Amino acid sequence: MKIESPYLMFLGDAQDELAAKTASGIVHWRRDRCFGQIKLPGCNADLSLPDASIMEAVDRGCKTLVIGVANRGGVVPDSWIPTLLHALESGLDIAAGLHQKLDDIEDLSRAAQINGRQLFDVRHPTQTFNVGSGKGRSGKRLLTVGTDCSVGKMYTALALEQAMISENMKCDFRATGQTGIFIANSGVCIDAVVSDFISGATEWLSPKNDDDHWDLIEGQGSLSHPSYAGVTMGLVHGAQPHALVMCHEPTRTHMRGLPHQRMPDLLKCIELHTNAARLTNPECECIGLAVNTSNIENEDKRIECLQNISNLTGLPAVDPVKDGVFELIKNFI
Amino acid sequence: MKIESPYLMFLGDAQDELAAKTASGIVHWRRDRCFGQIKLPGCNADLSLPDASIMEAVDRGCKTLVIGVANRGGVVPDSWIPTLLHALESGLDIAAGLHQKLDDIEDLSRAAQINGRQLFDVRHPTQTFNVGSGKGRSGKRLLTVGTDCSVGKMYTALALEQAMISENMKCDFRATGQTGIFIANSGVCIDAVVSDFISGATEWLSPKNDDDHWDLIEGQGSLSHPSYAGVTMGLVHGAQPHALVMCHEPTRTHMRGLPHQRMPDLLKCIELHTNAARLTNPECECIGLAVNTSNIENEDKRIECLQNISNLTGLPAVDPVKDGVFELIKNFI
Repeated sequence: MKIESPYLMFLGDAQDELAAKTASGIVHWRRDRCFGQIKLPGCNADLSLPDASIMEAVDRGCKTLVIGVANRGGVVPDSWIPTLLHALESGLDIAAGLHQKLDDIEDLSRAAQINGRQLFDVRHPTQTFNVGSGKGRSGKRLLTVGTDCSVGKMYTALALEQAMISENMKCDFRATGQTGIFIANSGVCIDAVVSDFISGATEWLSPKNDDDHWDLIEGQGSLSHPSYAGVTMGLVHGAQPHALVMCHEPTRTHMRGLPHQRMPDLLKCIELHTNAARLTNPECECIGLAVNTSNIENEDKRIECLQNISNLTGLPAVDPVKDGVFELIKNFI
Repeated sequence: MKIESPYLMFLGDAQDELAAKTASGIVHWRRDRCFGQIKLPGCNADLSLPDASIMEAVDRGCKTLVIGVANRGGVVPDSWIPTLLHALESGLDIAAGLHQKLDDIEDLSRAAQINGRQLFDVRHPTQTFNVGSGKGRSGKRLLTVGTDCSVGKMYTALALEQAMISENMKCDFRATGQTGIFIANSGVCIDAVVSDFISGATEWLSPKNDDDHWDLIEGQGSLSHPSYAGVTMGLVHGAQPHALVMCHEPTRTHMRGLPHQRMPDLLKCIELHTNAARLTNPECECIGLAVNTSNIENEDKRIECLQNISNLTGLPAVDPVKDGVFELIKNFI
């Protein structure tokens, strides 16, 4: 899979910025690949990119229309189809991270074939995987884990990549979700893999490497989340991480999507993930915390929160967005 | 999915009894549904059923040819096709638990259509599932778990069902693997479910029920097995078990299929599974052990082994095949 840039970012009729989360992530981390944005009537999201028509985008060398928006149910509404057909007819490929496959939509599939264009469904793995072996392999690995879903595991892994690159360290970001895959231009949407192959797919994603090379693997879910812990467990075992970074949102009162499910105890959650990781890498340690403090407006309270977490855990605690992640990697340089 | 019996058990060219494990399981637990067996040249397995031709089977009221044999790779070899076509043309449905879908084999798919017959691929879920919610539901649940794969989790769950039925308790065996699905005539092959939906599929499989009803859920893999722990984790969370039975094979020296992976410590393995289960059912307890002692020939040594395990864990330890499982359920009667 090789999605060619520059991208024309398709926002459809996104209700709000959150609906365009994938698109925002791509623009934030790979601005240089994004040529412009295209919206349909009723769209309330904006990526601060130039608006462009399909013809303008093609004329300026754009290669792919990226559907960076998710609507309810993850399907393509009929109202998008004319624009998508026009894109294919004008010479653009289309890439999407939706539950519904573009390739399963007959009009799109036919138009792609007729026009010699490609449809990329990044949520749907195209390769087959082996069952995980648990065998050790060379190279270092860091996995971002979390006390919950949507606490910044992808952001943290990408921030770590950026920090390591700036220190001239050898590293690769390894994507396990759709936004990450667009950013890395490769990866496996791990929650779409058949469950027998979760750890095997992760081993494939992060193969043996130089002894001083770091794979920075994007985590998913949480061992403490009753909906997704299976995905997380396979990912932890397949990653064989030397280091974990625990991602946390300290103001959250219950697990995401589950009002009846309390947030886990932070220390127990670190222990749970570290012990699970030691099954395939006995040397694994949690090296610090990436704390999303965006909901704490007062700067003194924010610093106090990080200090409390650091005191409780005996580990460095930073907000990757506000403080950067240098504290987390300085022992590896 | 409703696979109609009586079954004609197809053994193909099975190399040995182990290759016919699914067929043996069906015959062991549901002898009354099995009319006879049919073999191809070179078959070394036998189910102690009458040999029958397809025409004999049809004449005597057989409804389904069951492919109860797995060959390397889980695919249908060309040498089986003429017999399978003959079965469809003669009025039998075909059911299989192979990785390869019968429905993906064009000759079979066409013949089924022409003859109005059904092809059942029990490994491949036909329904879609929700993401697991972790919300409590009425009814009692028991999940068999294990220190490894292939230590008797299905056998133990079925033995528990039999014991509960003989005590007039309300219960259902809930199948999570292909052999179990043939036996129960329903279920979900949980390792074939997309990983996002493992716990959701398990919740679906074992819905709310009467307060005094027990679901006896067939476990898969082990939280200590680096290849399959993700499957196990989702299953544990989705099952919300009140009770776990830990299945164990005491003579095994390494995890199945992984010569480099040591067997887990028994006490730690019980703790690992119990703690995981308590995320969605805080009352969960491990109530005993089902120990496969088939590799311990000397009866005194066998008894000693069970006694040692019982002393170590403080829990009853039985071999379901030799001792039955009454010890495990007597507190629930």
